[in-house]
Amino acid sequence: MASERLIYLPLGGAGEIGMNCYVYGYGKPGHERLIVVDLGVTFPDMDTTPGVDLIMPDISWLAARKDRVDAIFITHAHEDHVGAIGHLWDKLDAPVYARAFTSIHARRKMEEQGRNPDKVQTMQPWPESRQIGPFTVGFLPVSHSIPESSSMVIDTPEGRVIHTGDFKIDYQPGVGEAFDRDLWTEVAKDGVKALICDSTNVFNHHEGRSESTVGPEIRRFVSEQPGMVVATTFASNVARVRTLAQAGADAGRSVCLLGRAMRRMIEASTEAGVLHDFPSVVSPEDASNIPRENLMLIVTGSQGERRAASAQLARGKYLGLSMDEGDTFLFSSKTIPGNERGVIEIMNAFSEKGVDVQDDDGGRYHVSGHANRPDLIAMQQLVNPQVVIPMHGEHRHLREHAKLAESMNRIGFLAPNGTCVSLSGNKPEVVEFVETGRTYIDGSVQIGAMDGVVRDRIRMALNGHVIVSLILDEDDSPLGEPWVDLKGLPEVGNSGSPLSEIMEADLDQALQRANDRTIMDDDKLDELLRRVARQTANQEIGRKPEVTVVVSRLS
Amino acid sequence: MASERLIYLPLGGAGEIGMNCYVYGYGKPGHERLIVVDLGVTFPDMDTTPGVDLIMPDISWLAARKDRVDAIFITHAHEDHVGAIGHLWDKLDAPVYARAFTSIHARRKMEEQGRNPDKVQTMQPWPESRQIGPFTVGFLPVSHSIPESSSMVIDTPEGRVIHTGDFKIDYQPGVGEAFDRDLWTEVAKDGVKALICDSTNVFNHHEGRSESTVGPEIRRFVSEQPGMVVATTFASNVARVRTLAQAGADAGRSVCLLGRAMRRMIEASTEAGVLHDFPSVVSPEDASNIPRENLMLIVTGSQGERRAASAQLARGKYLGLSMDEGDTFLFSSKTIPGNERGVIEIMNAFSEKGVDVQDDDGGRYHVSGHANRPDLIAMQQLVNPQVVIPMHGEHRHLREHAKLAESMNRIGFLAPNGTCVSLSGNKPEVVEFVETGRTYIDGSVQIGAMDGVVRDRIRMALNGHVIVSLILDEDDSPLGEPWVDLKGLPEVGNSGSPLSEIMEADLDQALQRANDRTIMDDDKLDELLRRVARQTANQEIGRKPEVTVVVSRLS
Repeated sequence: MASERLIYLPLGGAGEIGMNCYVYGYGKPGHERLIVVDLGVTFPDMDTTPGVDLIMPDISWLAARKDRVDAIFITHAHEDHVGAIGHLWDKLDAPVYARAFTSIHARRKMEEQGRNPDKVQTMQPWPESRQIGPFTVGFLPVSHSIPESSSMVIDTPEGRVIHTGDFKIDYQPGVGEAFDRDLWTEVAKDGVKALICDSTNVFNHHEGRSESTVGPEIRRFVSEQPGMVVATTFASNVARVRTLAQAGADAGRSVCLLGRAMRRMIEASTEAGVLHDFPSVVSPEDASNIPRENLMLIVTGSQGERRAASAQLARGKYLGLSMDEGDTFLFSSKTIPGNERGVIEIMNAFSEKGVDVQDDDGGRYHVSGHANRPDLIAMQQLVNPQVVIPMHGEHRHLREHAKLAESMNRIGFLAPNGTCVSLSGNKPEVVEFVETGRTYIDGSVQIGAMDGVVRDRIRMALNGHVIVSLILDEDDSPLGEPWVDLKGLPEVGNSGSPLSEIMEADLDQALQRANDRTIMDDDKLDELLRRVARQTANQEIGRKPEVTVVVSRLS
Repeated sequence: MASERLIYLPLGGAGEIGMNCYVYGYGKPGHERLIVVDLGVTFPDMDTTPGVDLIMPDISWLAARKDRVDAIFITHAHEDHVGAIGHLWDKLDAPVYARAFTSIHARRKMEEQGRNPDKVQTMQPWPESRQIGPFTVGFLPVSHSIPESSSMVIDTPEGRVIHTGDFKIDYQPGVGEAFDRDLWTEVAKDGVKALICDSTNVFNHHEGRSESTVGPEIRRFVSEQPGMVVATTFASNVARVRTLAQAGADAGRSVCLLGRAMRRMIEASTEAGVLHDFPSVVSPEDASNIPRENLMLIVTGSQGERRAASAQLARGKYLGLSMDEGDTFLFSSKTIPGNERGVIEIMNAFSEKGVDVQDDDGGRYHVSGHANRPDLIAMQQLVNPQVVIPMHGEHRHLREHAKLAESMNRIGFLAPNGTCVSLSGNKPEVVEFVETGRTYIDGSVQIGAMDGVVRDRIRMALNGHVIVSLILDEDDSPLGEPWVDLKGLPEVGNSGSPLSEIMEADLDQALQRANDRTIMDDDKLDELLRRVARQTANQEIGRKPEVTVVVSRLS
């Protein structure tokens, strides 16, 4: 029998920025004990996932090996790392470990889905560690854009593995631990087998900037505005929210937080003890009585989300507050690719109100939470791993990051989602390709990406939908003519007559010509009516719609 | 009776970047003779216009005054300026004027829609001008990113108006006329009443760069690549296509153009006499026999368009050509906001093939065709108009541009789509707000944006679609049970049973409880069935679908 091996398998996050889920295993092939790092979500869009609420990794592979899953570790409280824990926990049924701040979020997510929040256990940071089957695992603090972000130190019988999670190298992150170079040096000093590393900003060649650099700029900006200032950032960026609030307070403004996620993050930070000196805030009700030049709002919706506070303010009032000519809106954030239209729509809506809008101005009012290329290089030099396996990125990021490692005379190994890699021996080796994919939260149910549900929605959106109804009597003769209902289609086509009338006439004619074998066979009849409906539509409106045929036989 | 007046009315383009259409008029109020500058399109997206093929301005206002429209001028051959001419010409029935290169495109668009191409007349550039009713109009050459771009010089009884069209200030544009400062000075020297000015890049504070600056960078880049080089840019950017082709030829590579739009532009440029020294090209068939290191392809699809050459190469073969490990793909273009997802998808598809992808690197391999803020300032100083009316921009661009004019002690007047402005007298004045909007080309027909067609498509995409069918016999009693067809909805809901079965049972029960008044009234019955279907769906799958009720009464 084969000897034991150490495996790494990304199920999500290595091929997209989002829905992170990574598996480590150790044992005899097919019998490895498994641990999971992160269970995140990603967000739908109209182009590919209309109507879908959330997207999660398909963890069928793990679920089929549930008895071998010993633990789930959550590196930090961003949705793309913790968001699926409540939805997917049942399929794994393993204890969840996280640090205090992250635990608060993980527990809430468990509760929201009717799971037992006590399955989430809080761990202290490194050097605390937990022995889990063949692994010993600890949370190594690292700087990022949310409190208590951690890298995982995974000690295995084959040596130490470091899974960075999301990180940047920031010695003055504002809230939460600064990057502790000495601690990292100590952790890495006896050798690191593999560094599984964040790749988000590998194409950014500038040295990363500290969170502390935006404070003075924001303070200056806020102090210069004549009217009300409203600023938005990611709710989870507690350090930034604090910087914004402090800038408001320094400018003599009352500060008010708008948006549930924003208040929740500040509460969790306070509860976890990571935030001590947040300026006092006023309620929205009180805010509406404060002169606008003495007011600063910090709001959710930096990505143009339609229901967030920023979009509501752009459209009109929100909790009695509204923006007006002479006020200023600041995006202390960058627009995630794909969200441009929503953000721009908000900017224009504010412009129509006479509100001045300030974007991040190329980094003046925002810095990224991820390591840029020079910092990825610094991380490799610091940790000095035998192997670098890029994660947390699209394919192009992973590939570039692997090339970067190779250029530093290290093994850079490209392992997109589903690539099961053996880390035993001197070189990583692909041992299996595992089927991966996506699962959707759609309303209150989970559906598979390949179920055809979303495909049908997209087709209806692109092509419209025709319903052809026909009743056949006991003798299989049409009872009256077939008729159509149109949805999402023009009423009148090229001939100038109503499309439905022309289509009904064509269907009737086709039926009269059809032979008994067609009329009596459900499939053949369905196909005939469908084809005629599509042909007529194509002639009249230049488009072939989706067709649902409803035949009722009175026999 | 009121005296004569000069009016300006944007119907498209002053509130978006796209579908440009501007009206100038002179005469007694309500009797002005009218000219139109540009008739362009904009492009649909899945979020707001699924299934739509093209978006055009709603020109109902103009169409209702067709007898007063004396001419249509097209400033240049970009789709957002000329794209609607074939679709909308019938509604205006006026002569179309354009310069030679633009005319070629305008004629083709007329022909494609079955219009008479001879309605398009070619004019020579300034100082040629044409008297059109109360106006004298000429094409003043200006630099942009397509050959023979022009500003319109519109002489009116109230003075000279200059409508810039799209422009940048480029003294070395590569193809087409350089910006001729002396000519512009001459045109402006006797005073300009109003400058109607491109606003696209008002937020860009850097001085605009000449097209000539990208040539050396592209040449260097192409010469350094080991494998095949494939480059994409806007097909209409003839200067760039030539620069790319020249870089390929300089590097000893055979050059091949892929994509109909690309070849068509080069042909039109040659026909119009604006392009003399384009390197010789090889056919795709010949290209497939050339060693990849000796080959350069220039392809359409810089915006990630699914059917363009770039996307096809990313997915596999195109005309027998394919990309492979060691090849390089260059985006000599910038991604227009909203197209990020499509472009990124292509980048990742290439990455999976091992193809290196180079984006524009912050401007190294691409420069904009529009004037940046310093150039807008320079233009105002050069023309020295009494009034600046920003156009060609979203609301935020127009507003910022108007503020810029005011900051230069000039009148900056904000006039979004539908604002009819009188330019008579010392100050512009809004005289009317005109209803504006969008018209869609949808398959082979035109539909209004407010017709509800697209709204229904979006709803089906977001909510799915249930068809409820019911047959009632001569006595208004249900003949059998109601049944449902689901499209775009999960098959199984929270209860674990098929959604259709549960819905059918609920509908049947509701019918049994319904009184005769409901059963016999089409509207009430429709509403009952719809409500029950939505309730059941909401309980089972947490979503309220679109419902089409099809009731057949055998009476």
